[in-house]
Amino acid sequence: MDLPNLVERLRNGEARAIARALTLVENRGDEARELLTQVFSDTGSAKIVGLTGPPGVGKSTLGDALAKLASARGHRVAVLAVDPTSPFTGGALLGDRARMDSGSSDPNVFIRSMATRGHVGGLTGAAFEALVVLEAAGKDFILVETVGAGQDEIEVAAAVDVTVVVLAPGLGDQIQASKAGLMEIADILVVNKADRDGADLVAEETQAHTDGKPVFKTVARDGTGVEPLFEAIVSTTGERQLMESWLWNEVQEAVRERLPREAWAATLERVKAREITPHEAAEKLLESLKS
Amino acid sequence: MDLPNLVERLRNGEARAIARALTLVENRGDEARELLTQVFSDTGSAKIVGLTGPPGVGKSTLGDALAKLASARGHRVAVLAVDPTSPFTGGALLGDRARMDSGSSDPNVFIRSMATRGHVGGLTGAAFEALVVLEAAGKDFILVETVGAGQDEIEVAAAVDVTVVVLAPGLGDQIQASKAGLMEIADILVVNKADRDGADLVAEETQAHTDGKPVFKTVARDGTGVEPLFEAIVSTTGERQLMESWLWNEVQEAVRERLPREAWAATLERVKAREITPHEAAEKLLESLKS
Repeated sequence: MDLPNLVERLRNGEARAIARALTLVENRGDEARELLTQVFSDTGSAKIVGLTGPPGVGKSTLGDALAKLASARGHRVAVLAVDPTSPFTGGALLGDRARMDSGSSDPNVFIRSMATRGHVGGLTGAAFEALVVLEAAGKDFILVETVGAGQDEIEVAAAVDVTVVVLAPGLGDQIQASKAGLMEIADILVVNKADRDGADLVAEETQAHTDGKPVFKTVARDGTGVEPLFEAIVSTTGERQLMESWLWNEVQEAVRERLPREAWAATLERVKAREITPHEAAEKLLESLKS
Repeated sequence: MDLPNLVERLRNGEARAIARALTLVENRGDEARELLTQVFSDTGSAKIVGLTGPPGVGKSTLGDALAKLASARGHRVAVLAVDPTSPFTGGALLGDRARMDSGSSDPNVFIRSMATRGHVGGLTGAAFEALVVLEAAGKDFILVETVGAGQDEIEVAAAVDVTVVVLAPGLGDQIQASKAGLMEIADILVVNKADRDGADLVAEETQAHTDGKPVFKTVARDGTGVEPLFEAIVSTTGERQLMESWLWNEVQEAVRERLPREAWAATLERVKAREITPHEAAEKLLESLKS
């Protein structure tokens, strides 16, 4: 598939073309840049929903339920599962792989796991570009699932239209403690597995800590409570900072590409020898960019 | 305390001066930079040990046990607990606060929680500078504890002398799955809570997945197995990339400071209007740096 061909098929929403374009984006080469330049002006109108929370709360199941409902309501749906452990494994978690099989039963829902890249700017840059690809392919309801622990995931969450934070009863104390940060980025909170002991307590505590944010209870497995959650998602619009985060990512990558390798290596040696501080070294390196 | 006074007291290892210097570093102002410039050449010889793993495995307890043992062996010990949820709360987790009280029972162990900053470069930059402050204060055995989920923590782990990854029996499937990435950054693996059911199985599985890396079993709570682990840590030296990571962080921060606000804002508007892609915009912004 050459690029004009790919762009045309992508605009027609062909699954194979979407898959190919996302692979280009993951690999971050010149072709991906050219592709994005061509389709970028078509995009910007899809509803982009972030779904995050600690491991084990049922995010994937809830994501599937929301995707199915959105599809039934006539949306063209995509799910982008951002995988934070993959800078090392290079692929998706087993959990996600199992899911992708089940998800493909609805031909109107496109599901893709996306690996992080193990360097600053990798995850978010590729995730942003993937959103543009999905929009260019006509998707108008896009769920971005992250695990909600690291900085990258937080950045993705900040970049979407609506951030849904998923919790559940029965998590360990340390995971409960980490809820504080998640609650602040949430537009909407969900207590999933609401048929389990302690769900009401988690919902009450969550409500008490979030100062007026909506808290929903769901049982994603059987669909209980998913519809009111979906309605709330559709009617919520948070502040979207996608372009700001993305632009900063691109600036970092451009700096990385432009720094002369020899100057970098020589400066690093001086830092290692404790002759100059990293701050002083950075100032010198930026001066070298000017020439 | 003025700066020359602070530097002198820091070099004498006074706890109050260390605390003050670390606060300067967390706030990342000009004073911190001046401080670092003055003490940087004194540093580079401490043993820096990363301790990471999923929530709930007993990292803090194990860190305390290792710190106590190192102190008994004559080391001047510091524990830096890097807190990934704090870009929002601005402070340490409750768990860490409780710990700091118990940890202070050994006057030779200095313990500090460090908040992340909620922007790229924040956590790692401040963590690196904190290591220099601790070394300048004479600490020669420094434990850096992170939660081992996000990119920042992985970067910190890559920057230390030895990375110890802590696991435990009885974690959920999803947390088990995320072990894969952690195992790759490990120099040494530990199965803590080794008196619990399933510990042998976890140790065997870990061994099978790590291709020759040492796997230790500990019960940090009562000190079982901590001594052989300590010996292994002392005799292991991984590849240390601290200065490389730190230098790259400083380059990013320097770029952020130099980009003219008006140019940034105007360019961002053009991106939001989908007139140019973030990549094209980044190229333009870097050109503006040259003048």
